[in-house]
Amino acid sequence: MCAIVGVFGNENASSIVCMSLFAMQHRGHESSGISSSGMFDGQIQEIKTIKGTGFVRDVFNDENIKTLKGDIAIGHNRYATVSGANSKNIQPISASSKLGDISIAHNGNLTNKDEVREKLIEDGAIFASDMDSENLIHLIAKSTKDNLKDRIIDALDEIKGAYNFLIQSKDKMFVIRDKHAIRPLSIGKLKGGGYVIASETCCFDLINASFVRDVNAGEMLIFDKQKPDNEFASLQLFKPEPRPCAFEYIYFARPDSNIDGKNVYETRIKLGKALAKSDEEFLKNNKIDMVIAVPDSGIPSALGYAKESNLAYEAAIIRNHYVGRTFIEPTQDIRDLKVKMKLSPLKYLLQGKNIVVVDDSIVRGTTSKQIVSMLKNAGVAKIHFRVSSPIIKYPDIYGINTPTKQELIGSNKNIDEINDYIGSNSLNFLSIDDLCECIDKNINCSLVSFDGKYFA
Amino acid sequence: MCAIVGVFGNENASSIVCMSLFAMQHRGHESSGISSSGMFDGQIQEIKTIKGTGFVRDVFNDENIKTLKGDIAIGHNRYATVSGANSKNIQPISASSKLGDISIAHNGNLTNKDEVREKLIEDGAIFASDMDSENLIHLIAKSTKDNLKDRIIDALDEIKGAYNFLIQSKDKMFVIRDKHAIRPLSIGKLKGGGYVIASETCCFDLINASFVRDVNAGEMLIFDKQKPDNEFASLQLFKPEPRPCAFEYIYFARPDSNIDGKNVYETRIKLGKALAKSDEEFLKNNKIDMVIAVPDSGIPSALGYAKESNLAYEAAIIRNHYVGRTFIEPTQDIRDLKVKMKLSPLKYLLQGKNIVVVDDSIVRGTTSKQIVSMLKNAGVAKIHFRVSSPIIKYPDIYGINTPTKQELIGSNKNIDEINDYIGSNSLNFLSIDDLCECIDKNINCSLVSFDGKYFA
Amino acid sequence: MCAIVGVFGNENASSIVCMSLFAMQHRGHESSGISSSGMFDGQIQEIKTIKGTGFVRDVFNDENIKTLKGDIAIGHNRYATVSGANSKNIQPISASSKLGDISIAHNGNLTNKDEVREKLIEDGAIFASDMDSENLIHLIAKSTKDNLKDRIIDALDEIKGAYNFLIQSKDKMFVIRDKHAIRPLSIGKLKGGGYVIASETCCFDLINASFVRDVNAGEMLIFDKQKPDNEFASLQLFKPEPRPCAFEYIYFARPDSNIDGKNVYETRIKLGKALAKSDEEFLKNNKIDMVIAVPDSGIPSALGYAKESNLAYEAAIIRNHYVGRTFIEPTQDIRDLKVKMKLSPLKYLLQGKNIVVVDDSIVRGTTSKQIVSMLKNAGVAKIHFRVSSPIIKYPDIYGINTPTKQELIGSNKNIDEINDYIGSNSLNFLSIDDLCECIDKNINCSLVSFDGKYFA
Amino acid sequence: MCAIVGVFGNENASSIVCMSLFAMQHRGHESSGISSSGMFDGQIQEIKTIKGTGFVRDVFNDENIKTLKGDIAIGHNRYATVSGANSKNIQPISASSKLGDISIAHNGNLTNKDEVREKLIEDGAIFASDMDSENLIHLIAKSTKDNLKDRIIDALDEIKGAYNFLIQSKDKMFVIRDKHAIRPLSIGKLKGGGYVIASETCCFDLINASFVRDVNAGEMLIFDKQKPDNEFASLQLFKPEPRPCAFEYIYFARPDSNIDGKNVYETRIKLGKALAKSDEEFLKNNKIDMVIAVPDSGIPSALGYAKESNLAYEAAIIRNHYVGRTFIEPTQDIRDLKVKMKLSPLKYLLQGKNIVVVDDSIVRGTTSKQIVSMLKNAGVAKIHFRVSSPIIKYPDIYGINTPTKQELIGSNKNIDEINDYIGSNSLNFLSIDDLCECIDKNINCSLVSFDGKYFA
Repeated sequence: MCAIVGVFGNENASSIVCMSLFAMQHRGHESSGISSSGMFDGQIQEIKTIKGTGFVRDVFNDENIKTLKGDIAIGHNRYATVSGANSKNIQPISASSKLGDISIAHNGNLTNKDEVREKLIEDGAIFASDMDSENLIHLIAKSTKDNLKDRIIDALDEIKGAYNFLIQSKDKMFVIRDKHAIRPLSIGKLKGGGYVIASETCCFDLINASFVRDVNAGEMLIFDKQKPDNEFASLQLFKPEPRPCAFEYIYFARPDSNIDGKNVYETRIKLGKALAKSDEEFLKNNKIDMVIAVPDSGIPSALGYAKESNLAYEAAIIRNHYVGRTFIEPTQDIRDLKVKMKLSPLKYLLQGKNIVVVDDSIVRGTTSKQIVSMLKNAGVAKIHFRVSSPIIKYPDIYGINTPTKQELIGSNKNIDEINDYIGSNSLNFLSIDDLCECIDKNINCSLVSFDGKYFA
Repeated sequence: MCAIVGVFGNENASSIVCMSLFAMQHRGHESSGISSSGMFDGQIQEIKTIKGTGFVRDVFNDENIKTLKGDIAIGHNRYATVSGANSKNIQPISASSKLGDISIAHNGNLTNKDEVREKLIEDGAIFASDMDSENLIHLIAKSTKDNLKDRIIDALDEIKGAYNFLIQSKDKMFVIRDKHAIRPLSIGKLKGGGYVIASETCCFDLINASFVRDVNAGEMLIFDKQKPDNEFASLQLFKPEPRPCAFEYIYFARPDSNIDGKNVYETRIKLGKALAKSDEEFLKNNKIDMVIAVPDSGIPSALGYAKESNLAYEAAIIRNHYVGRTFIEPTQDIRDLKVKMKLSPLKYLLQGKNIVVVDDSIVRGTTSKQIVSMLKNAGVAKIHFRVSSPIIKYPDIYGINTPTKQELIGSNKNIDEINDYIGSNSLNFLSIDDLCECIDKNINCSLVSFDGKYFA
Repeated sequence: MCAIVGVFGNENASSIVCMSLFAMQHRGHESSGISSSGMFDGQIQEIKTIKGTGFVRDVFNDENIKTLKGDIAIGHNRYATVSGANSKNIQPISASSKLGDISIAHNGNLTNKDEVREKLIEDGAIFASDMDSENLIHLIAKSTKDNLKDRIIDALDEIKGAYNFLIQSKDKMFVIRDKHAIRPLSIGKLKGGGYVIASETCCFDLINASFVRDVNAGEMLIFDKQKPDNEFASLQLFKPEPRPCAFEYIYFARPDSNIDGKNVYETRIKLGKALAKSDEEFLKNNKIDMVIAVPDSGIPSALGYAKESNLAYEAAIIRNHYVGRTFIEPTQDIRDLKVKMKLSPLKYLLQGKNIVVVDDSIVRGTTSKQIVSMLKNAGVAKIHFRVSSPIIKYPDIYGINTPTKQELIGSNKNIDEINDYIGSNSLNFLSIDDLCECIDKNINCSLVSFDGKYFA
Repeated sequence: MCAIVGVFGNENASSIVCMSLFAMQHRGHESSGISSSGMFDGQIQEIKTIKGTGFVRDVFNDENIKTLKGDIAIGHNRYATVSGANSKNIQPISASSKLGDISIAHNGNLTNKDEVREKLIEDGAIFASDMDSENLIHLIAKSTKDNLKDRIIDALDEIKGAYNFLIQSKDKMFVIRDKHAIRPLSIGKLKGGGYVIASETCCFDLINASFVRDVNAGEMLIFDKQKPDNEFASLQLFKPEPRPCAFEYIYFARPDSNIDGKNVYETRIKLGKALAKSDEEFLKNNKIDMVIAVPDSGIPSALGYAKESNLAYEAAIIRNHYVGRTFIEPTQDIRDLKVKMKLSPLKYLLQGKNIVVVDDSIVRGTTSKQIVSMLKNAGVAKIHFRVSSPIIKYPDIYGINTPTKQELIGSNKNIDEINDYIGSNSLNFLSIDDLCECIDKNINCSLVSFDGKYFA
């Protein structure tokens, strides 16, 4: 996932970027960083970067934000990865090169990363990090063009995959969205002046921005302090072949975001309704007492399921939001501590009931198993597990941290076997067709996790 | 509010107390502390205390918990107060006195605190803190009885108000609930051995405890390492006159807790239903598109309202749970930042709609005003504000931090004036009768905030 | 040891106290604290205290010092003790009592501490710390006198031992030195206005104070904001029987301090000279190549020894001042790491030489043994160990942390046995007579560590 | 200055490097870092680096040192620079390139740094830091040779200036000293196995290493895990033209270090003696009461001066070693706080005396002026300032942070004018000839600061 945000032409650029990162904290909290440049006090500022591990609130405070001067700023939240936080892999990354310093924030995954890196190293390049964004900086530096824009275009020709790039120099900001538009990226106009570019529109309210439009597939935006009006130019670099990631709708994005014109909450309600429709037979034959959600991401789908099926929706699992890192080891007689510290069932309400529980996805199956076990211990009579996405059978390669095929339960077991494994009384997934229908039948979504049809 | 928890007779006492405090973090996160004593490695341990400001996860970690040895432990979460965190006011507080060291955790408020303190100072006592629990330690120390139990009983005779006390010596733990049983206090049996006493039952699942019963109004429990079986004795110190605090049901307690036998979530559903019933006329005459809640505490009442009125419930306000302390100052052009950093409305869903929004209470009115303003900015056509508690007209004196009468909007304005002030299209509160009915008509709740009838 | 300092009548009171504590850091760095009160902005301030573990620079910074308002401040540095830092034992300690809040800083040791504490507890007092200063607060609180001065006098009647007390209320400061004047305490006049009272005069230069006089044995000074001129009154509470601690001259005090009129550096030069005189015979019969010191406290005595004996003095042991707490555990093959991280010999200079090495004292003998071993490894041919104090045979009870009689090597071995144990080629101590002569033959020093004649 | 240290062939490599850095803390405490690799548990480890700002004790602890596994480690202390600590400029720096990861620690200054960097950037290189060591990594990466050793040799051909390099791969360590041998670099054999290479020999005692020899001017050492015996190979890369930096003897190195076979303490004694000899006339005509030093670096020269002149040496200025960063701002009425917090004169001893005070150098003159002023305030009658180095007239460019020519007082004023400026009664510097004579007349020292004859 990850989140990126850039502001151009506002004197509070870095603090607006900081608040936007805060509003997009759900897209990653392994690390956070902001680079600033642009005009301050009548002077163009060199790029300055502050970054660190942890939540936005851990890295930034009122004092250090003030030292990020200028009216251009880009920021990045990094999603927690298996390898853990490594200080050399925090974005934005900066480098000095022929055309001065530049700083880059990247959301996505370059699929030809290794070939590019190998070739660059072959030619004598050195790498300070493991991030694929460093590839781009090298390619920009190696271009023989005489201005940054043309060098970036040269560099983009060499790379494939999913990418949203924000590239900042001391007086310019470039925005690029790949031709498949896999990850979301929207443009907002700041009431206080200037523009904001952000992964999700959910941050616009907080920073007093109004939605302008999405960045187009294959489009480059050019913001330039040399132009007096803070307006941006647009170049259509590549022919658009949009394949937006279905998972943004299913799970990643915040419900109050709109992605490519579609509201996430509303889409999730539809997913739940479609799931209930596909359960028509089941619902006829089974007396269900209530529909509940695995909070927080399962809530809209569960509401949709309840609406469609005319069943009662209950907020029957409480989520404890105070968890950070696990700060205390379990004593011997406490199992499943991690799930239990986060989720707590309403025993009183659930005892002896037949329920439908809706979650957004099953990846490895271990968490679902723990949730079913937790509900059984709370006295639930029958647990019908419903998933508001199709079976995940293939690893994603466009910027989501999915495990290997070996670890994906959907890749190794059929529905009955998964039902047995997690211990539920019945199990149902959304169909791929229903998913596409709910998002928008006119859109050719990226469904690689479900159908394995890789395209970029 | 505040939370207290004590464990007796389990070798993991301090880590169980720590997890319980974590599960009761909603009752206070200004500071946290744990004292341990009892048997470790065949030896009775002297009392050791670790405490500090902030969340449980800030104060405790696996390493320092291990240094809190022994099978007795008491813990405390302190609720944020206006005056801010002061290191001398963190509980538990310990003192050396004639009968050895004791440590005390207290939840509640002593109404004759100042008189007692004045008299003790008159007699030459010195005070190291501003906490009313220090009164009790002095009274215990001044008693001429020759054992701790009798000294505690002597001391309790001198004090009035709301209190749940956990008092620990190196080999004993005493539990006392005041005769009005104003604050909740429950007994659990630990699967791993021994007992737990906690403000709320919501922590029992996490620590593998099963509910035994509530501590009775006016009861003292005595746990003693001298007794071989870890069982406790009970003394009925005072004639019970139960007046449980209605606010525990309305707002304080976690929905998965049961207080004096009644489930909190279920009660809140009832509050919402009663509120809808009282709106019968209104609902007939107004076309309402949806019922929404101010998260998280307004959710169950909103669900109840929607059920009763057959209106759609929508999760239309997103709560950002990453907020800690405000870490960054607003720029000039961002108003109401504090509410906006926490709550974000689903514009897309709300635009042009007539809605009922349910919150649990109105205290000063400033937050409600900001929420109404936020919803208006999101394009809501008509905002009907509903409150699942009666009008708060009087300050509570039994352990809730309510502001003064001057600051309480309900004390200075009538419903129409409040409606005007917060800017809603209509406003309704739950009636006191409905509140009592929903909780339990056989229970004589403490309603001082609503009716001003102080009793202790 | 410990250091205390009080300032009265200067608007920068707390920052002057802070700098004075910094200049007296050598008297203790386990913890540090400052309380302020007095006049600020035309208003008398209530007492406010900031304290914490570690060096002065760890506890205080420009920002928190600014919050300690008013023109009265007292401060304290605590010496590292065996038991380690315990947050409940950091001075100054404050308490609320009948006559308002008071704060106390204490340097010394009350010899009847346990009896007093026991009696107070018997009467129902509770103790929040293990510090003997808490005794004094209780005694003040229990006095029936109607003003603070008389209550303090009442309280002092009950205690025995070595004490310098600074006692602060919101508008007064009291200074008391015990009748034996065991620990040093001097009065300075601040160029910027008001007075400073400090354990050592070495801080006077830094804060622009000029020496006025020492506080007399048995004297009480009274500073009172009610008096318009910031001048102090003096009361001779007890008949003076001065017994100043010889160790202040030998080891504790900074060389640039004057104690009771005598300069510490000059006295140490004399100790070294006397030691050399007593070695007359030895020096005739042995060819010595150089005199070296164990830095830093042994340097002046070594210089004195070299002067008297006409031998060359060399700075042949380098002290590494970057050590804090030991931050890294030794690997298996590194012994005596603690001494080696602190001290490093000039191998090149020392190889094959016959040397006299001067240290200030031998307590347990372990450090001396390590130093001798270190010098041998550096290739020294003959090591003649000289000690600028008499043999320590008895524990001090007046505020120095000496180990028990069992641990004192001088209590269990004679000179030859000590010489054998530490591995030197010869060993000599200063005689008690020489020590007294060097300090001042007219002064009846406290020599309890050497002669065991306890007097208070 | 800066310090570098490398260990090869010892399983405690990283903790030995850490202790060595601690012993060389005087060469820099802006930041500190260690990289480890080599054999651990039968496996060759990839390079891992931990680095941060501050003292060695701030960056490293027992826990994080344990994560630096393997029997190869290199470390670096960075000297405080004017520009302040910048996290991107902390060494060692690491990079991934064609031949795998490498890590580099550098002590010195490349005089053609800017040309090389410009050329590299011209060719498309990007820079992540401002450090000249990054040049070397690029040059190594761009070499077309097929092994690391030959690539390093290629790279070294391109650079000029003062350098000691430690270059580490996962199984090799390379050591290079420039042909002028400007900065010291010595080889030690570890008692626990393997070798250590360090800037100064003063760390050898602490880590149980015995001195083997200095690295030769223009020599490369090759340590290789492929060779079974942990022994190293040597290559004479460049024809030696030794120009060791005179400032190492005068000021930088610790007195217990030997540089190129000469002991630093002994050399400083000689400097002081030569200074006294040049004062023959002066000493005949003036009655001097004592010789004192500006601690700590002026002490040996002051001792030498006293020996030669038969004057008394006194330790008359006390240095407070607890200063870190200045933690508290001066109040208005305290001038020269920075010097006063660090140095304190023995008033009692100095009053009315005629003294010679010896310091190691005068750079800007401001500190000398403050010291003279401090001594005057202490009552000194006549202050004869003596400097154990020649007049500094030119900036150094080989790795010392000297200010610009404009700021150097010796570049703008003659001796009389400097004497007037600092306020002393007389002033004398060591002559360049005496300096050379004292170090070693057969050695052609680098004297650029004094004579401006740049050579590399």
